[in-house]
Amino acid sequence: MSRDLQAAVVGATGYAGMELTRILFQHPRMKAPLLLSREGEPGGEIFSPVDGSAVELHPFSWRLLHQRGVDLVFLATPHEVSWSWVPEAMRHGLRIIDLSGAWRLRSPQYRAVYGLDESEPEQIQDLIEKAVYGLPELSRDKLADAQLVANPGCYPTSVILALAPLIHAELLDVDHGIVCDAKSGVSGAGKKATAQTHFVETAENFRAYSAFTHRHTGEILEQLALAPEQLVFSTHLLPIRRGILCSIYAHLKRPVTHEELENCIREFYNHSPFVRIFEPPRLPEVQFAQHTNFCDLGWVLAPGGQRLMLVSCIDNLLKGAAGQAVQNMNLMYGWGEREGLLN
Amino acid sequence: MSRDLQAAVVGATGYAGMELTRILFQHPRMKAPLLLSREGEPGGEIFSPVDGSAVELHPFSWRLLHQRGVDLVFLATPHEVSWSWVPEAMRHGLRIIDLSGAWRLRSPQYRAVYGLDESEPEQIQDLIEKAVYGLPELSRDKLADAQLVANPGCYPTSVILALAPLIHAELLDVDHGIVCDAKSGVSGAGKKATAQTHFVETAENFRAYSAFTHRHTGEILEQLALAPEQLVFSTHLLPIRRGILCSIYAHLKRPVTHEELENCIREFYNHSPFVRIFEPPRLPEVQFAQHTNFCDLGWVLAPGGQRLMLVSCIDNLLKGAAGQAVQNMNLMYGWGEREGLLN
Amino acid sequence: MSRDLQAAVVGATGYAGMELTRILFQHPRMKAPLLLSREGEPGGEIFSPVDGSAVELHPFSWRLLHQRGVDLVFLATPHEVSWSWVPEAMRHGLRIIDLSGAWRLRSPQYRAVYGLDESEPEQIQDLIEKAVYGLPELSRDKLADAQLVANPGCYPTSVILALAPLIHAELLDVDHGIVCDAKSGVSGAGKKATAQTHFVETAENFRAYSAFTHRHTGEILEQLALAPEQLVFSTHLLPIRRGILCSIYAHLKRPVTHEELENCIREFYNHSPFVRIFEPPRLPEVQFAQHTNFCDLGWVLAPGGQRLMLVSCIDNLLKGAAGQAVQNMNLMYGWGEREGLLN
Amino acid sequence: MSRDLQAAVVGATGYAGMELTRILFQHPRMKAPLLLSREGEPGGEIFSPVDGSAVELHPFSWRLLHQRGVDLVFLATPHEVSWSWVPEAMRHGLRIIDLSGAWRLRSPQYRAVYGLDESEPEQIQDLIEKAVYGLPELSRDKLADAQLVANPGCYPTSVILALAPLIHAELLDVDHGIVCDAKSGVSGAGKKATAQTHFVETAENFRAYSAFTHRHTGEILEQLALAPEQLVFSTHLLPIRRGILCSIYAHLKRPVTHEELENCIREFYNHSPFVRIFEPPRLPEVQFAQHTNFCDLGWVLAPGGQRLMLVSCIDNLLKGAAGQAVQNMNLMYGWGEREGLLN
Repeated sequence: MSRDLQAAVVGATGYAGMELTRILFQHPRMKAPLLLSREGEPGGEIFSPVDGSAVELHPFSWRLLHQRGVDLVFLATPHEVSWSWVPEAMRHGLRIIDLSGAWRLRSPQYRAVYGLDESEPEQIQDLIEKAVYGLPELSRDKLADAQLVANPGCYPTSVILALAPLIHAELLDVDHGIVCDAKSGVSGAGKKATAQTHFVETAENFRAYSAFTHRHTGEILEQLALAPEQLVFSTHLLPIRRGILCSIYAHLKRPVTHEELENCIREFYNHSPFVRIFEPPRLPEVQFAQHTNFCDLGWVLAPGGQRLMLVSCIDNLLKGAAGQAVQNMNLMYGWGEREGLLN
Repeated sequence: MSRDLQAAVVGATGYAGMELTRILFQHPRMKAPLLLSREGEPGGEIFSPVDGSAVELHPFSWRLLHQRGVDLVFLATPHEVSWSWVPEAMRHGLRIIDLSGAWRLRSPQYRAVYGLDESEPEQIQDLIEKAVYGLPELSRDKLADAQLVANPGCYPTSVILALAPLIHAELLDVDHGIVCDAKSGVSGAGKKATAQTHFVETAENFRAYSAFTHRHTGEILEQLALAPEQLVFSTHLLPIRRGILCSIYAHLKRPVTHEELENCIREFYNHSPFVRIFEPPRLPEVQFAQHTNFCDLGWVLAPGGQRLMLVSCIDNLLKGAAGQAVQNMNLMYGWGEREGLLN
Repeated sequence: MSRDLQAAVVGATGYAGMELTRILFQHPRMKAPLLLSREGEPGGEIFSPVDGSAVELHPFSWRLLHQRGVDLVFLATPHEVSWSWVPEAMRHGLRIIDLSGAWRLRSPQYRAVYGLDESEPEQIQDLIEKAVYGLPELSRDKLADAQLVANPGCYPTSVILALAPLIHAELLDVDHGIVCDAKSGVSGAGKKATAQTHFVETAENFRAYSAFTHRHTGEILEQLALAPEQLVFSTHLLPIRRGILCSIYAHLKRPVTHEELENCIREFYNHSPFVRIFEPPRLPEVQFAQHTNFCDLGWVLAPGGQRLMLVSCIDNLLKGAAGQAVQNMNLMYGWGEREGLLN
Repeated sequence: MSRDLQAAVVGATGYAGMELTRILFQHPRMKAPLLLSREGEPGGEIFSPVDGSAVELHPFSWRLLHQRGVDLVFLATPHEVSWSWVPEAMRHGLRIIDLSGAWRLRSPQYRAVYGLDESEPEQIQDLIEKAVYGLPELSRDKLADAQLVANPGCYPTSVILALAPLIHAELLDVDHGIVCDAKSGVSGAGKKATAQTHFVETAENFRAYSAFTHRHTGEILEQLALAPEQLVFSTHLLPIRRGILCSIYAHLKRPVTHEELENCIREFYNHSPFVRIFEPPRLPEVQFAQHTNFCDLGWVLAPGGQRLMLVSCIDNLLKGAAGQAVQNMNLMYGWGEREGLLN
């Protein structure tokens, strides 16, 4: 198999960017990726996440992208960078997988949390129309022709994959309200040193944050076609480096059996190699999903069969970011969905 | 102030027993406590949790209790030990604070989780009638005359204290269902080395367990007078040594304001020195409650004022066990509620 | 006992400052301490480390110190602040316990690591002459009359206390070289958020830093009267919040027995209530010293009796900073050395 | 490339066994490995460390090894199992890579720590003669013909690789004594639940153990041809899941320059793909080696050029166990040394 595709990673030094770089260097279809810092930031030498050798980090340059024959660009940069940069990249014919939140939300109302006011430029609205929300388990077919893929947020990936089968099967009583109590490791907060990411404030500690107001809420609501009052979404900071575990509480419209529930979920993910289903009484744990691209799903059905706890678990840097981006790439180029991701 | 009371601790080497011992050695009203191992286990030399000096651990002996003039016994032993031992101790006129689950539950149906079948001896039923559930914030007045105090479970302490004011004020729509997503540090699982407490299985990990079936559920239901279908209680294991944080989701019967909510809670705990109320947007965190006897309470009210997230936090070994036991003792003997507990 | 002394804490919001504040609020001889931010920084409301109530943090003000009748000032600020501020405070007749490195070093050569060049003002040299190095176990007698106490560094405290008895007894072959491999928790790096204190860079990680160049080296050399080539001092960052453990390797001038070694150390610390001696095979562990003011000492003697590993352990925020400062205060005012520190 | 080799793993459920299984499932030269429990223990279903699917764990059976055409057996079992089992396996013509300490030591005196007394059977002495100590960087050439490979211990791997170049170049003053202060994560203590591996006893803690007596000491001495009095080897338990970092202190026979030192080490490992050299001031950290098969080496040279701190770092489950076993296998079968190990 020849390694043909030339991709570039913008923002290769963040946590998601480093994971992405590691995967791309070893992907059987790829040339060594071109690594770029964000526009306006210096380049330099970084160390390969594969073997520790020195690798060049280039300052951002259109000319360089052109010279190297880059076909695909991964953006692991803030959404503001995406808004200023992607329109031109699209005109150059580049394909783009954007790990930021820039293109995930259809409704301007939800998009407001990203700081874009009502007067957002028309070209951005056009691109949002064109963008494919890259959760392969729900939109596998749209990826082959996508030029711009909005890579989902980490929390939404874990929540949407847990709820989609039951909502699709119309088993959930969504009007009763769904409670999603999500917990994430610290790498989800990014590489910036802040009071919140200081070791002493986080180790041997646990705290809730952003209940009812987390900016990933709109993404979940849109993808699951829920109204705001149908979902409680709250988030917590775990004293671990990586991993998300969501405990989701819901009512069913009618009593179901374990078998019915399991069949519903298994059928929905029949062709999805990165969803693992845990049969009761086994439940997903962060340690099982860590360092993998899997989304692990499990559940506990209360006596009576009508109250349900779903447990979903991912590695926020892989299925919640870099791994999912590569899974999207595999589907954009017609390759096997698992290539470069199972190791 | 003379140090007058002679207490004994049975089970002084477990995590709760060690904390209890540390507090009692420094309590201004107490003689040095007599430390005993469980009946049938050997004694030996242990190290003072105060200054590291060698302290004697005595094998259990009725004679020794008598010789030393013990008035009060703390039981930090399994509930089976309590059932076999407490009836006789009561006849000897000892006062008892039992940290196990032996006497906490009124309903035989809930008590079944502790393995006592329907043919439980009458004397045990009698003692359960006599026992005072020792959550001082709810039953301060009953403690002065109590001979047998059932020290509450760690999870129930954090859940009951969070919900009691709102249920008492009839603000909660309990029929809608309350979701309580609880997380505990590993010392809650005790000192026994098991696969679940192995460092490698717990550090950098997070997992759910016992959803809908945790044996503390009945305790919460009884104390709050809830029906089983009105509460979802699920528990998780945090990679920390000590601390419990509960995220509790509930609907209110009618929209309330922040002020109304705050007043309701403040008024309820007006005379409770160990409940700390965090005004929004501050929320309790494990690190604030750790190594203290406080129960910290905070909340987030959703826009609309009818959906609520409560956050409560305790140190499972203190307010959830040893600290609460000493608080109960202070009230049993008519001392200041805070004596020996604020340092 | 009347609570008479009025002290002030400058820099009350750092990790050492918070511990100091917590101890002073509960010290039986003290009025509630006056809390001040560093000169030039704003005041505000902070939360009591004792009971969580709101406490005022005052902007630094000479007038306020005077009005409140402050007699003693604790400085938990950078050494630059001390150099600019202490000379005037001394002229006002204040007594000062300085937790920074400003006054610890006699030799200008070692002091250079604190950025003071050769042209350091004469008044600073004068004050360094006057300052008492506040390691009570070595200089208990000088503290009663001290006006300015240089509170030792955290690493030096643990290293000096381990080596002092053997050097004093002339048992160590110092010319062979002493290797001190020290490990500290992250609070030793302070509250500032940096790449080094980021949770993701520290948890599940371990690293060496500053070998042969750590700025605490001079302090150890001076206090033990060692030459630079007689000591290797290297430091490492542990993924824990607080605690220092030093493993110290040395050769003895002649073979000794366990008893001889133990007697030497016990005798030296005969009147030192905060040094705990662990008899082999017990060794100090971070968990034993954490949240205490003890320095725990233990050792392993190699077969042959001439090669020795010493293990010393402290809580870097207590015996390594705030606790030692209070111990110094107790001695400055002629109180019991343990007051306010054993709880 | 066809997947031809059939290997078996005995003891596939321990920490090293699980890592080994994960690597073998993905190794491009291997059929799916046959997984066996230890002789006398039951089989059962386990979960693939690659994709979570159910995999059969077979009870140990000679017949099964034969039926499946097993050529190579990995032993991830205690050394006692090896002594009873390997002689027969050798007669069957199997090739063996043994992760236990059974065949690592030539000198009966050092071997005594494994509990084999002087009357050890002759066949065991014969096999020890035949066994190749499988540290590929030192014995690459002997592996092609090896039938029995003694996979090195985790600590010795990190110590020997750090010291070998300098000892080989006769730069070290070994008579002055080498101090090796080693720190390991908890998985090094195995999967058995004990007081030492309990989360509450290990998290936020750090402790020394086995100074001067660790059973890996003999292995280091033999491989580096050192006398016992030339090495201090002490070990510590880090509150992390995996990783070893050794800080090694040594004197050089004469002053050297940085370049000389670096050249010496680089030349020695010129053809060793799994040794990474960190140029000062960069130093290895546990996080860089974790989840890789690299041994990372760095150093700090004291002013004067004659006192040296070496830092070496490995993942104890990979380069310290399973990864090194696969590296040995690659060399035994003449494959690329890195196959299956760089991902």
